[in-house]
Amino acid sequence: MTSEETRIGRRGGGRAARKAARLAPEVEVDPCTPGQRGGAYRPLSDAKLNTICNEAFRVLEEIGMSEVPPMVQEMALAGGARLNDLGRLCYPRSMVEDIIAGAATSLIYYGRDPRHDFEVGGDKVYFGTGGAAVQTLDRKSGLYRPSTLADLYDFTRLVDTLPNVSWFTRCCVATDIPDNFDLDINTAYALLAGTTKPVGTSFTLPEYVAPVIEMFDLALGGEGRFRERPFCKAHISPVISPLRYGEDAVGVALECIRLGVPINNIVAAMSGATAPATPAGFLVQSTAETLAALVMVNLFAPGYPMIFSNWPLVIDLRTGAFCGGGGEISIMNAASGQISNHLGLPSGVASSMSDAKAVDAQMGMEKGISALAAGLGGANMIYESSGMMASLLGASFEAFVADDEMLSHVHRAIRGIEVNEETLGFETIREAVTGEGHFLGAAQTMDAMQRDYFYPALADRNEPRTWEEAGATDLWTRARTRADEILASHYPDYIEPEVDKIIRERFNILLPRGCMRSGGS
Amino acid sequence: MTSEETRIGRRGGGRAARKAARLAPEVEVDPCTPGQRGGAYRPLSDAKLNTICNEAFRVLEEIGMSEVPPMVQEMALAGGARLNDLGRLCYPRSMVEDIIAGAATSLIYYGRDPRHDFEVGGDKVYFGTGGAAVQTLDRKSGLYRPSTLADLYDFTRLVDTLPNVSWFTRCCVATDIPDNFDLDINTAYALLAGTTKPVGTSFTLPEYVAPVIEMFDLALGGEGRFRERPFCKAHISPVISPLRYGEDAVGVALECIRLGVPINNIVAAMSGATAPATPAGFLVQSTAETLAALVMVNLFAPGYPMIFSNWPLVIDLRTGAFCGGGGEISIMNAASGQISNHLGLPSGVASSMSDAKAVDAQMGMEKGISALAAGLGGANMIYESSGMMASLLGASFEAFVADDEMLSHVHRAIRGIEVNEETLGFETIREAVTGEGHFLGAAQTMDAMQRDYFYPALADRNEPRTWEEAGATDLWTRARTRADEILASHYPDYIEPEVDKIIRERFNILLPRGCMRSGGS
Repeated sequence: MTSEETRIGRRGGGRAARKAARLAPEVEVDPCTPGQRGGAYRPLSDAKLNTICNEAFRVLEEIGMSEVPPMVQEMALAGGARLNDLGRLCYPRSMVEDIIAGAATSLIYYGRDPRHDFEVGGDKVYFGTGGAAVQTLDRKSGLYRPSTLADLYDFTRLVDTLPNVSWFTRCCVATDIPDNFDLDINTAYALLAGTTKPVGTSFTLPEYVAPVIEMFDLALGGEGRFRERPFCKAHISPVISPLRYGEDAVGVALECIRLGVPINNIVAAMSGATAPATPAGFLVQSTAETLAALVMVNLFAPGYPMIFSNWPLVIDLRTGAFCGGGGEISIMNAASGQISNHLGLPSGVASSMSDAKAVDAQMGMEKGISALAAGLGGANMIYESSGMMASLLGASFEAFVADDEMLSHVHRAIRGIEVNEETLGFETIREAVTGEGHFLGAAQTMDAMQRDYFYPALADRNEPRTWEEAGATDLWTRARTRADEILASHYPDYIEPEVDKIIRERFNILLPRGCMRSGGS
Repeated sequence: MTSEETRIGRRGGGRAARKAARLAPEVEVDPCTPGQRGGAYRPLSDAKLNTICNEAFRVLEEIGMSEVPPMVQEMALAGGARLNDLGRLCYPRSMVEDIIAGAATSLIYYGRDPRHDFEVGGDKVYFGTGGAAVQTLDRKSGLYRPSTLADLYDFTRLVDTLPNVSWFTRCCVATDIPDNFDLDINTAYALLAGTTKPVGTSFTLPEYVAPVIEMFDLALGGEGRFRERPFCKAHISPVISPLRYGEDAVGVALECIRLGVPINNIVAAMSGATAPATPAGFLVQSTAETLAALVMVNLFAPGYPMIFSNWPLVIDLRTGAFCGGGGEISIMNAASGQISNHLGLPSGVASSMSDAKAVDAQMGMEKGISALAAGLGGANMIYESSGMMASLLGASFEAFVADDEMLSHVHRAIRGIEVNEETLGFETIREAVTGEGHFLGAAQTMDAMQRDYFYPALADRNEPRTWEEAGATDLWTRARTRADEILASHYPDYIEPEVDKIIRERFNILLPRGCMRSGGS
């Protein structure tokens, strides 16, 4: 040990620290709850932000949209839009600005259990899932296989126990259900059965929305109950890059509006393919496209609850494959959140997924960087942020558990540093320095210990020998054990038996009751 | 696949993208070189920043320093300091401000090869290593063992090939050398032999500095040559938390000043033990302490090249063990860099180490979060950022290789988003939208492909089936293969044989020549 190492002695005061631990208050304080306020990271300067927004307005005004469903075109022309020489539907800036001014600036995302409610808007940051893997990382083989309805139910009840997944959009597709209507119904059923958090799903066709809401109303105890506290959002992409509407998705959106289903309006352009490869140009087009979706929704229902989900996606230009990890997608999604917040709209981005297949260092690195960038940037809803692997092709139980712990660190970082007389603690410094020469027993230390520090459960902080004696495990192994424990025990009872009977009589529910209790799945 | 998934098709235009790849220019452009300009993340608001700095000045003025070496006290009292009632040496704010005004605002960190030179200061960000593990993660066993001189030489020549390790402070201690003088000499020799990047080391005693510089002069071809382009910094901690000087380290610092060795002046306080547990209070004390070191150095040598290394370290208050990963240490180091940059001093922090023992998801996550936070925050020199595991107790070859790739993503993120007429590309959008409907062949895409995107070599971006067919490897395995390849082939020839002979005659060099060529180590 030479000069500086002596200052980094591993156990600065082990015994005194353990004594401090015993003396610490027993009340559990979560030092890093979801909903911390972001924005300390500003990937775009004010000048860049204004330039990109101005260019987005210009794209809508001069280039405009194609493949506009007749109903939308009629409403838009009546609302101030015009057709350009190429017959594309163009929105004058003043019209778009008026729409923004009348749009929802925030919304409550309801849980079936009100303790899971949260407000989306401002600069508060929440992490949750998006759609939708077609494969599951098998916990036994460590390899991928097609995902099933049973997987979806298992993911749902796992997430029900993870505090940093603030909502659950069905993370995988039940590929064992061939019929699209059955798929949409059973996906919604799995969400109902496994969690009372806010949830999200998608609808293959407009006519599938009403039956799903009927099932939700049954679960809530009567017709119209869903509309009072809509706990499920629809993920819809009514705009397809570059700059055209998608008729089916517009139809789903209009049906959701009719039935009171809040909308997560996703634009998911791909750099260099369906949008510019330059990050600035990409953000211009993608912002314009998300505004085109906002205009569409607000023409039919001014102020309708809608997440402004501008999700920049990156493809590896060597192969054309989508890739979710890396520096580019991290800054582009952070910047997207900044732009949406600047426009005063509830922002959604996609970050903290991984291209890795294994639950390994690549996964941790890719998720850590992209989650922190989006979170510090202040995006309100960070989708795809838990459990997603293999460039969104796969979902992993172990990754869900590992990500949940990572997101505590991220929330802690977003929370930042409180500066006030108590935390500055000038007199505490004076007393420690002129007294015992350390801070281990100080009242300030006791107070800070739980309020300011997160203590991970899965991460290994032991010294090498202790780690080796305990089996030299990696995080994948420890996360698997934890996921196994949760899945073996957490079978929530969120649908009452008599209601379940009614739902099963009315709909073709393919999840056997036997899967829904201990020893079943 | 339901509504939004159809927008996230994995291969949006695989064939066209591959065609684009073939057409792309062959010139290699590094899209994420070290030295990007940070500062887009501001963990502290201006008000908080000013409050913390004001309190730090107040600590120096009212609480002051103890255990002051007589020589320092004499110079300080002559320079405007005073002793308080408790006999502690206090620095009036005006005195400290004058010292800061006369201190070096930037410095060149020289490599033995000038292409490795870089400037430290402003808001440019570089990553490198710090000291000093006592164990090495063995590549064969996957377990830790005591680190040796051969390890240090191997780490040095490995780092010589890694572009994102901008300098190499010896990352491990040669625990196979019992004598401290032999240790310091042989550590310096390993650095000389393995790299021509800027390097750093530490000195056990003041009288060991001169012989090491003598060896450096021999290697450079004559007495006084080191002083012309000092390529080695000394890591010194002349201030010991809380608020006292360390006599031996002060002696080393003064000897370094005499011999022209730039100083990395490290304060490494530990939260809740040797400094407050509250992040705000911690930063107040730690900033005051690093200023006390700055005052000391500048009293003897105004404007002397010195890194203002304020390294907040966190202990797990449950156990008293130092822990290098997590949200707290990430924001505290990011804030430290912000404070030092605000004071106009070349900033050093410690980030991107891990508590993990395995090269696993915990490692990736901890390093990703802490590296990005410090980098976006703009710290000039981010120490301990490569290869460091097990809460600084261990160093890993595989981690070095993995971290190097991660740091490309981090540099890419720090670089941010260029906004100008070309990158906005309004006409490119118009042409793509009204023409082929995609951007794959656009000139803008070709230009951006290498300029704006980093393509990782170790990360796996394949789909699950391809990954499985290739052996279902994790990053640890792939990094090990890469490290093995480099270490089997990269035996640089940085000490000429005749010079080596002279050095070995003059000093007790313990690294056999046989270790320094292929097939040896």
